[in-house]
Amino acid sequence: MKIVCKVWLDQDGKAFGDGPHELLRRVEKTNSLHKAANQMGMAYSKAWGLIRVLEKRLGFPLLERKVGGLSGGGSNVTLKAKELMSNYERFRKEAELCVEKCFQEHFGSVQ
Amino acid sequence: MKIVCKVWLDQDGKAFGDGPHELLRRVEKTNSLHKAANQMGMAYSKAWGLIRVLEKRLGFPLLERKVGGLSGGGSNVTLKAKELMSNYERFRKEAELCVEKCFQEHFGSVQ
Repeated sequence: MKIVCKVWLDQDGKAFGDGPHELLRRVEKTNSLHKAANQMGMAYSKAWGLIRVLEKRLGFPLLERKVGGLSGGGSNVTLKAKELMSNYERFRKEAELCVEKCFQEHFGSVQ
Repeated sequence: MKIVCKVWLDQDGKAFGDGPHELLRRVEKTNSLHKAANQMGMAYSKAWGLIRVLEKRLGFPLLERKVGGLSGGGSNVTLKAKELMSNYERFRKEAELCVEKCFQEHFGSVQ
């Protein structure tokens, strides 16, 4: 027996969680929402729509678009998004640890 | 901004969580899986199937069936199920408190 814990930030609906965090992490690495969505088996239009909804709920932009240049443009993660990701990572890790601790306290004897 | 946290026990799939807990709580009050399912807007066949799956994953019976008598039968929650419910309630409450605490630590300044 194990415990599963899912968390997300809510602001009139889901505003941030594991899925968006992974998507942004992949944009950070690839500088491309196209590539990030593709890596996650997600349609680009769906990823784009998701980012727009999250930005609206959070109240700040997550991505900034680079236009043209030698690389032909792409997407960057904004500074505020990086800050959110880093806060979320720390929060997520601690939350998981304390839920696991509570689980062990109440169900530790159950195999 | 607030945090949402969903937890469930897993044993080769969902074995117990908020939904099953509520269903059993209602069986405890009504002595009837029919009434409990009905109160939750759930088909009886779905509730029955759910209980069977959970019992298989947990490895013990959640309900015992009373047959006949003046009241015409019904369902009781087993002692092991009551113990599970009570452990789950304590675990759930503590887990929620500690996740909220982690959230405040990392996102307390965010409105």
